Amino acid sequence: MRRGFGCAAALRGLHTLTRHTHREVTIAYPIKSLPTLPVERAIKVIGGRWKVAILRHLFDRPKRLSELGQLLPNASQKVIIQQLREMEEHGIVFREIFKQVPPRVEYSATKLGLSLEPVITALCEWGYRHAAELNEIDLLEQCVLAPSTRDQQ
Amino acid sequence: MRRGFGCAAALRGLHTLTRHTHREVTIAYPIKSLPTLPVERAIKVIGGRWKVAILRHLFDRPKRLSELGQLLPNASQKVIIQQLREMEEHGIVFREIFKQVPPRVEYSATKLGLSLEPVITALCEWGYRHAAELNEIDLLEQCVLAPSTRDQQ
Repeated sequence: MRRGFGCAAALRGLHTLTRHTHREVTIAYPIKSLPTLPVERAIKVIGGRWKVAILRHLFDRPKRLSELGQLLPNASQKVIIQQLREMEEHGIVFREIFKQVPPRVEYSATKLGLSLEPVITALCEWGYRHAAELNEIDLLEQCVLAPSTRDQQ
Repeated sequence: MRRGFGCAAALRGLHTLTRHTHREVTIAYPIKSLPTLPVERAIKVIGGRWKVAILRHLFDRPKRLSELGQLLPNASQKVIIQQLREMEEHGIVFREIFKQVPPRVEYSATKLGLSLEPVITALCEWGYRHAAELNEIDLLEQCVLAPSTRDQQ
């Protein structure tokens, strides 16, 4: 297996295992600059549609794209790929390519991604509180947490 | 002073003191439905541009629009008003109109808005951590917290 870094990812010190073709792909989707306010930066990193839902499943264990697609049937594959790529560029998701035929690709949460768990928990609890105050608790779906975290509650 | 509720606000149980003309204004800007996932709901409520920055200043004490404008010189008055209105509709900002000539309007954080402080702190700390990991800490502005909270750190 060839170990290499995407150009933009290397500049940011991200640890990504890539194939020959990935270098061009990374350059084709440059990292958008993040807000300079820490809170807005954090919101930007996790705020995209499905991002928290995807992360939740990666907190559990690494997953292939097809597994994520099955776990998130309402999200299109195109959107899942796009969100995974952004999260990879922002250092919270790790993409590993196992050189076999056909190549197997797995996504996992990085240490930085895993550190989001208490932040996501805080947001989740506040989302519940907000919905309760506005009498909309019945509209809410289950809190997005890792299964292990949910079991402890 | 006439006490009344904007129609949409009344449906959601928000406590807003309004003038005669406010009823139409509230109807003209209906509340957008919030995401059904608690985390996405929380992000939607606080994620708008300048919202956290505005809240930070309201954590301190109630403020008039002109004061907020001076505190956020890079934000246009139109945007500040729009964000305040959304936060009011979502129950985290309270607008009080004092009937005097000319009428004085003050904005403050509601109890629900104040309950965001630990969530914003968690986001802020994670934003710092993320910037540090990506070697972008120099680009970051000061953490957005209430002055009293900042002093305690």
